[in-house]
Order: sequence, then structure tokens, then C-alpha cells
Amino acid sequence: MSQQPDNQLSNWGRWGATDQRGALNLLTPAIIKQAAGLVKTGKAYSLSMPLTTEGPQWPQRHKTWRVTTFRNPPDERGGADDVVTMHSHSGTHMDALCHIWYDNQLYNGYNVSEHITSTGATRNAIDNVPWLVGRGLLLDIAGWKGVDHLQLGEAITAADLDACAAAQGVTIQPGDLLLIRTGWIRVFAQDRALFNQGEPGIDESTIPWLRQHDVVAVCADNHAVEVFDAMPPARLPIHTAAIRDLGLYLVEYLNLEELAADKVYESLLVIAPLQLTGAIGSPVNPIALA
Amino acid sequence: MSQQPDNQLSNWGRWGATDQRGALNLLTPAIIKQAAGLVKTGKAYSLSMPLTTEGPQWPQRHKTWRVTTFRNPPDERGGADDVVTMHSHSGTHMDALCHIWYDNQLYNGYNVSEHITSTGATRNAIDNVPWLVGRGLLLDIAGWKGVDHLQLGEAITAADLDACAAAQGVTIQPGDLLLIRTGWIRVFAQDRALFNQGEPGIDESTIPWLRQHDVVAVCADNHAVEVFDAMPPARLPIHTAAIRDLGLYLVEYLNLEELAADKVYESLLVIAPLQLTGAIGSPVNPIALA
Amino acid sequence: MSQQPDNQLSNWGRWGATDQRGALNLLTPAIIKQAAGLVKTGKAYSLSMPLTTEGPQWPQRHKTWRVTTFRNPPDERGGADDVVTMHSHSGTHMDALCHIWYDNQLYNGYNVSEHITSTGATRNAIDNVPWLVGRGLLLDIAGWKGVDHLQLGEAITAADLDACAAAQGVTIQPGDLLLIRTGWIRVFAQDRALFNQGEPGIDESTIPWLRQHDVVAVCADNHAVEVFDAMPPARLPIHTAAIRDLGLYLVEYLNLEELAADKVYESLLVIAPLQLTGAIGSPVNPIALA
Amino acid sequence: MSQQPDNQLSNWGRWGATDQRGALNLLTPAIIKQAAGLVKTGKAYSLSMPLTTEGPQWPQRHKTWRVTTFRNPPDERGGADDVVTMHSHSGTHMDALCHIWYDNQLYNGYNVSEHITSTGATRNAIDNVPWLVGRGLLLDIAGWKGVDHLQLGEAITAADLDACAAAQGVTIQPGDLLLIRTGWIRVFAQDRALFNQGEPGIDESTIPWLRQHDVVAVCADNHAVEVFDAMPPARLPIHTAAIRDLGLYLVEYLNLEELAADKVYESLLVIAPLQLTGAIGSPVNPIALA
Repeated sequence: MSQQPDNQLSNWGRWGATDQRGALNLLTPAIIKQAAGLVKTGKAYSLSMPLTTEGPQWPQRHKTWRVTTFRNPPDERGGADDVVTMHSHSGTHMDALCHIWYDNQLYNGYNVSEHITSTGATRNAIDNVPWLVGRGLLLDIAGWKGVDHLQLGEAITAADLDACAAAQGVTIQPGDLLLIRTGWIRVFAQDRALFNQGEPGIDESTIPWLRQHDVVAVCADNHAVEVFDAMPPARLPIHTAAIRDLGLYLVEYLNLEELAADKVYESLLVIAPLQLTGAIGSPVNPIALA
Repeated sequence: MSQQPDNQLSNWGRWGATDQRGALNLLTPAIIKQAAGLVKTGKAYSLSMPLTTEGPQWPQRHKTWRVTTFRNPPDERGGADDVVTMHSHSGTHMDALCHIWYDNQLYNGYNVSEHITSTGATRNAIDNVPWLVGRGLLLDIAGWKGVDHLQLGEAITAADLDACAAAQGVTIQPGDLLLIRTGWIRVFAQDRALFNQGEPGIDESTIPWLRQHDVVAVCADNHAVEVFDAMPPARLPIHTAAIRDLGLYLVEYLNLEELAADKVYESLLVIAPLQLTGAIGSPVNPIALA
Repeated sequence: MSQQPDNQLSNWGRWGATDQRGALNLLTPAIIKQAAGLVKTGKAYSLSMPLTTEGPQWPQRHKTWRVTTFRNPPDERGGADDVVTMHSHSGTHMDALCHIWYDNQLYNGYNVSEHITSTGATRNAIDNVPWLVGRGLLLDIAGWKGVDHLQLGEAITAADLDACAAAQGVTIQPGDLLLIRTGWIRVFAQDRALFNQGEPGIDESTIPWLRQHDVVAVCADNHAVEVFDAMPPARLPIHTAAIRDLGLYLVEYLNLEELAADKVYESLLVIAPLQLTGAIGSPVNPIALA
Repeated sequence: MSQQPDNQLSNWGRWGATDQRGALNLLTPAIIKQAAGLVKTGKAYSLSMPLTTEGPQWPQRHKTWRVTTFRNPPDERGGADDVVTMHSHSGTHMDALCHIWYDNQLYNGYNVSEHITSTGATRNAIDNVPWLVGRGLLLDIAGWKGVDHLQLGEAITAADLDACAAAQGVTIQPGDLLLIRTGWIRVFAQDRALFNQGEPGIDESTIPWLRQHDVVAVCADNHAVEVFDAMPPARLPIHTAAIRDLGLYLVEYLNLEELAADKVYESLLVIAPLQLTGAIGSPVNPIALA
């Protein structure tokens, strides 16, 4: 593993040489039990956007197809089913740890040429993640800044994360599932062309911060969690550092509007990827319980 | 709504003439809060089967496709994505309330000819269900009977459900999400031909029982929750009664093995269907927290 | 067959009560042999547009997906394949006789409710058409009018067809496969928004003309052969008359540019639909030999 | 192009350094005009198998999906369309010159790593082939041997091809589109398990023969033109030599039964691949005119 990144910014080997779960290892029963204790009112929130032909999704991707098959005989039982064709990274979705890489190596040093083919991934695929369950910590950056939404290309720094947390009266804990609200998902409905040019999001200053706080997942209401202002972006430094170096999970295109409106900064968050064998990601419907 | 079924066995109109959510209406914050209190150890269980080309699924259905796209340039960031083509009712999945009907009427009296087309359902579609969250009550029928799995065509009656609950020391409560373990999912791996002939499951005696107990969902480790011994089955009386008359949710092809091994009879259960607009169902990965 | 249309404008029953081939019956060996005699120079023309994600296709339809799977091991044989998801009516394509109807009856009186389901057509499906082979008669309307292309909503009448044929020095014969050039396909590349608003094409005056001349197929370089100026069109009178009443074949989105440039008014035309069992149509690559 | 094969068994560079059409270059207008002269009776033959869920196709491939969408309003025009998901190499189909390779080089020396990606081929893709039109020369090996079909693993040698041609009274000419009948397609219906174990077909002795006779395409009624007796086959020497070294076209899963029954040894053959941009192959419906 000589090509692994700076030890300070890597989790390679931390959970063993054969680990494929990355930061999921941090989600211990103790963490989950503690998070369950956050359920006070019993209100449940779906953090998924509607999953339609239009996405939300990267403009370069093929769009989701859904057609319905049915049979409605006059005097018998009738029934219907659907046919869905989609990218696993369309709509609200979760990236597997094999989604992004560099230098021909996946998280924990697996060789890409060997493990990524047209038939799927034989390391770090989404079916290594039965669930992400823990404390969902909402950092409502747009709310903290008092804006409808952050602007295209507007960076959220580590200092912003700290300041927002302080303003909200919350403290980051190891094992947190971060929910970062930029408000950008509102632009999806308001101005599709602008939405597809890029996004506000966290910048590179947050990489050591994510490692230091032992965050498990970063979920955001935009295309790709991180800031960029041209589509496609020239670089995706958070993706490469978080997924490939740190083994963190990125979850994208969330709808955090209702959670923010209710100021639910802490919740029990359940993210349950489809157990697609060998897949690079999965559409999800994250559920927050408050 | 003159053609609606016997009042005793119907929930039409119970939650209003325009209701599309059915028994989901029973899942109040109080129920969810109470269920969250069941999390004692913090152990999490995925109740999904692996989602592969082979299903599990009805043998008549087209099989799931998944191919992976990727790009691995020598000196740049590389990345991968998937293309998935599948029936929404393949693998572990949840039926929407528009999945099954008779007499050209859906749950709550909606006209099928008007509301079910090749482009989807305009009533009772899966995106009316942001989540099912509540108490997961496992009735381990195979365990109670002391068998590896029930036999093809072996019926589970209302009396069996009561006897099993009593043996397990649990009581059915309004709003429960029932998890019925027949052991039949083991046959999927052991004998595919037998698995595809039918299944053990609940029989018609359970319909008034489900209504009386105000069960919200019945989840099982087989094709279709209910008993039948020929594929395709001539009748699906639980489907028509539960989905169309009572507005209950059926969830199928669950893996309840680990939950049963740990004797987790009560858990906080979270089922989060993909928010496919207008769809007839969704693959799911149900998560039980104990 | 009491609901069949006016005898003058119908071919129902003409080739027997169980016929599913319609005007294909006119393509006798004698016609084919005669058409083969038109091959003078041996030049071959593909009349297909490139089949891309962008179509050409109706704007309401899902777009064609094509992804490639491959394996390139260092010291072994490598290979590739494609995954294609598409509507059978995308790109240059041919309509089966079950594509369009009214009054719940298909061509030759078949009951739609009985024969068209989500699993396909059990009457008049595309696999009743092993080939269309005969004389391709190009009527270059744009060339005859001396325009780059006809305008949105510009009608081509029966009188126009006659006048163009006369100007070109050709005579319509029974069994002809008509190739009507409007030039509209140029607009696909030039102005997609205009292209998708409708098209120039033949109008209702041509229906008796098509019947009288025993034309077998009408192929055109636009969406739908016939004139309309709003998308979706309120009416498609040529579709209903040609396909459902007359049993004619419509073939759409052809590229007739090179054929027209070479003034190849007569050719041996071969159209070979994929033999998709029970399908409503097929993408095709029509070949003209001159 | 230093790694190119033996000059005697290669066509690299023959049609220029940038050629992507291979043996298609041999199909001159003179060849086509001559072939058109073979149309004597005007009888047309579709050489396609029905294109169904079951293929025919390699057993490792995903199976073709086709579902139908429709709308049948009581008092209006109704209509239907299909959704098709398939491999381009399913059913009767044609291989593009980028389908098979070795040593990281495609036909004419193109670099595979550069030109084959998940989004398709940028060299030698199927849309370089607008048509194959020429003399279809049927070599009915099963008929010549007097058998129902050749056996699994039974090799057809160059000497066999010569002897069969002599027995049929035909001579191979440059530019021929060879139709080789093994009878193996009968096994598809009779014994699927046997069909999927391999096939009879031409062996390596035919490679110099194909080059020497300047054959343009080899079409056969089996999986892969060439002999093998284990699935998947360890080697595919005809594929690598014909496609990658010689730039020949292979067309597979043809139905040659009727052509052979009529002893149509010579015909005008038209093969028209769908113009899928960047694709690795295409389903086809080859048409022979006699």
C-alpha cells in the first residue's frame, strides 16, 4: 500500500487489510442505541426527492425510464408492475466506496483494473453496506447564513461547519452522519439550467475536518456534496479524498427542507441501500426520525 | 362506492374519500416513538436478500439487469456507475396499494381504467408512501413449529398467528408491521424449482384477523405472503383483501434468518420505498433495529 | 366487422378474415423481380438516420440508452457488447399494423382489448412482416417545389403527389413503397425546437389516393408521414386510415438526402424489421439499391 | 502497426491507415449489380430467427426484455409502442469490427484502451457499416453431408467448404457473403441444453481460405460461426482472425432452413444493421432475394 495517501488523511488499513466497509465500521451498536434515543416526538421524515425521469441527476447521465405493465380483465383479479431502467446514481442516492478513485486504486488499496469491470465491482461494492444507521446531524448552512440557498460555486469551509454547529448548539461526534443543507435543491425546481452548472458545497478545507471528526457519511442537497462551478467539474477533491482515501460515504440529492423547517438538528437517520450485488451505488430514501 | 366489499373487511372511506395511504395512516408519531423505545442493544439488521439477476422474483418476470460503466484513465480520477433494468417487484420489495385489484376498482374505490396506464398509476402509487416506520413484530412460525421451513402449500391460519404470538410472549398491537417467517427463503438457495412452485403462507382465515388487529403491513420471506401451491396461483385472496379492500402493505422476499436466530421478536422497523413517481411498487431494504 | 370503415377506404377482409399482413400481400414475387431489375449502377443507399440518444424521435418518448460492456485482459482475447434500451418507435422505424387504432378495433377487425396488452400484441404484430421488398418510388416534394424543406404544417395533397410524379417522369404502380421527401429531417439538425413542433407531410386528400394506387408503404423523412403543426397532434388521420383501415405500412425518420441528390426516383427497396415477437414496431435501416 | 499479424492473414492497411470498414470495401457497385442479377423468381427470404426473450443468444448474456405500452381510450384514437432492452449481440445479429480483439489492438491497429469505453467504440463501430449487400452464397454443409444437423464440436474445414461448393456447383468469388448452414439452429428448439454447450462450425483451416477468397462476411446458423464444444469456449480463433486481423464480418443465429430447402445457393443478400452510433454490433434481419 505504498501509494496510499498521507496517513493523516487516509483510513487505509485502519479496519484491516481486507476491509471493504470503510467508515461504516464506526457505526457500533452503542452509536445506534444512542441515536435511537434522539427520537422524541416520533415524527418521521423522508429525505428523498421524488424519483422521476428528470432526476434529479447529473445532466450527462441517461434519464430514468419507468413504464408500467398491467392487466385488467373484466371479471378477474387485475394487477400491475413496473419496468425501471436507471443509473444507480440517479435521484437521491448513495455512492459505494468503489465509485471514485485515482492511481488505479480503490479505497483500502484494491486494484481497479482487477476489481472494476462491466459486470460490476468485486471490491467495495454497495452490497458491503447493509445500512447506515446513526445520528443524523443536520448542519443547515443556508439557514445559518439566512439565505434561500447558497450560490453557484459558494464554498463551505471547515470553519463554516464549526460556526454553523456552534450556532445550532450541536457538537460533532465520531460516527455522525452529516446532513449538509445548501438549499441548492430548490434551484432544481426553479432554474434547471443553473442547477446543472454546478453547486455550492464543502471545499477541500473540510477533508482533514471530516477525518478528525470521524464522520461516517456526508449527505447533501446537491449533485455531489462538494463545491464546483462548471459541469462537468475539473476536479472532485472531496470525492477522491472522502471515498477513496477515507472510506466515507457520500449521499446526494437529499431533500432537507422539512427537516430544516422543523429545526431537527439531531435525528435517528436510517439509510438503506438496495443490496444490488456488485453495484457502484444505489438509489435510497433516507429516513430521519425525530 | 357501492361495489366496495363487506364493511367488516374494508377500510374504504375510513381515512377519507380521497385517501391514498391506507393503513399507513395508523403509523402515528406515538407509534413511532414507542417503537423507537424498542432499541435496546443497538444492533441493526438488513432484512433484504441480495438483489441479483436471479431475484428472488416470480419466475414469470423478466430478470434484473445490472451492468457497470466505468472510466479508468491512467493519470486522472476514475469513476464508475451502474445501469439497472428491473421490475419494481423484483427482489425484496413492497407492493403499492395500486398493485392488485378486482372489479376495476383500486383501494378506496378509484377506477382502474382511469388511473392505471402504461405511464403509471395516478392513484395509490408508491410515492404516497414516504416510509413505513413502526414496531416490527416477528412471528417466527417456522421456529415455533420447530421446522427448517414450512412446506409448499402449508397454510398459516389466524389461530397459528395467535398461538405463535403467545408462545413468543408477544401481543399484536394496532399499527404493527408484521414479519412472518416461514423459512421458505431457504428453499430459494436449496431448490429453485421447488421455490418457484408456490409457498407456505397465511391463508384466508387471517383476513378478518389482520383487519381486527389493525395491522399496517405484512412482510414475509416468500414470494407473496400468502399460501399457494401452483405457479401462477389461481387465486391470491390475501392480496386482493389486504391491498385492495383493507389498504394494507405487503412486503415480500425478506430475509428474516438473523432476526429469528437472535429471537428479535420486537424491533424498530424502517421500510423506505424509492419515491418512484407513479410506480406500482419499489425494491426495498427493510432495516430492523433491536 | 360491422364497424369497419367505408368499403372504399378499407382493406378489411380483402386478404381473408384472418389476415394480419395487410398491404404486404401486394408484394408478390413478380413485383420483387421487377423491382430487382431497377438495379442499374449497383449503388446502395442506407436510408437510416444515425440512431442516437437524441433520436430522432417524438419528444414525449424516453430516449434511447446505449452503454457498452467490455473486457480487455492484457494477454488474452478481449471483447465488447452493448446494452440498448429503446422504444421500438425511436429512430428510423416501421410501424406494425397494431400501432394505431380507433373504436377498439385493429386492422382487419381484431379486438384491441383482447389483443393488445403490456406483454405485446397477439394480432398484427411486427413479426408478421418478415420484409418489405419492392419498388421504392421517391417523390422528392422538396426538390419538386425547389425548397430546402417544406414548412411546418405545410400539406402535401394528392394532387401534389401526382404533379411531382409527373414532373419526375414516374408513374405510381400497385405495390409501390413510397418514399416522400419533405426535407424536414434537415430541421432535426438545424432547429430541434422547430422540428419537434410538428412537420410538413401528406394530408387527408391522399387517403383515397393511397387506396386507389394500392401503395404498400409510405416512408417519409419526418416524425409521422402526415402533416401537423402542434405536438402532440390533435389528430393523426393518415395513421388511423393507413394503418387501421387500409393495412398500409408507415416508415418514419428516413434520410432521403443522398437518394434525392442522385435523383434515384426508382430503386429496389429492402426494409427488414427486427423479428421482435409481438412487438408494435421496429427500428429499421432501409436499403435502396439503384 | 508493428504488432499486426502475418501479412498473409491480415488486411490491416489494405484499405488505408484510417480504414474502419474492412472487407466492406470489397462490396463495389459492380458486385452489387451482379448480385441483383441473381433475382430470378422474386421470392424473398427472411433469414432472421424470431427475436424473443429466449434469444437465441449466448447463455451468459442477459435476456431480451420487451414490454408494450398502450392507451386505448373509449372514443378516441388508441396507440401502442414497445420498450426493448437487449444486448446488441442477441438474436440474429452482426458483429462490428470492434467486437473482438487481442493485444490491445482492434482491426487496422486501433488502440483498444483509447477507443473502447463504456460509452461505446470510437473506431470500427457498427455505424461504419451502412449495409452489407452482395451475393449470398449458401454452403449447405448439413445438406451436403446428408444430416439433420452437424454434431456438437464437429469441424468444417476449408476442404469441406470446397467440396460442398463443388457438390452444389458453385464457385466462391471475391466479395461473397457466405451463408454456412450447419443445421445447428434446429437444436435451439429441440434441445436447449445441448445448443448451449457449443456448436459445429468452421475451424482454423478456413482462415487462409477466407482471406484468399476475399470473403466479406461469414453468416451461420449457430452462436459464433466457428466450432467449439465447451461454453464458454477457451478460444475463438475465427473471431480473432476474421474480425481483428482480416476485417471480415460475422453474422450469427441465422435461419437458413427455407433457403436450403429451396436450394437457393445464390441470392442477392441484404444485411442492414441498425445505425447505432458507437455500437459494437446490431441485431439484423438479413433478407435474401432469389
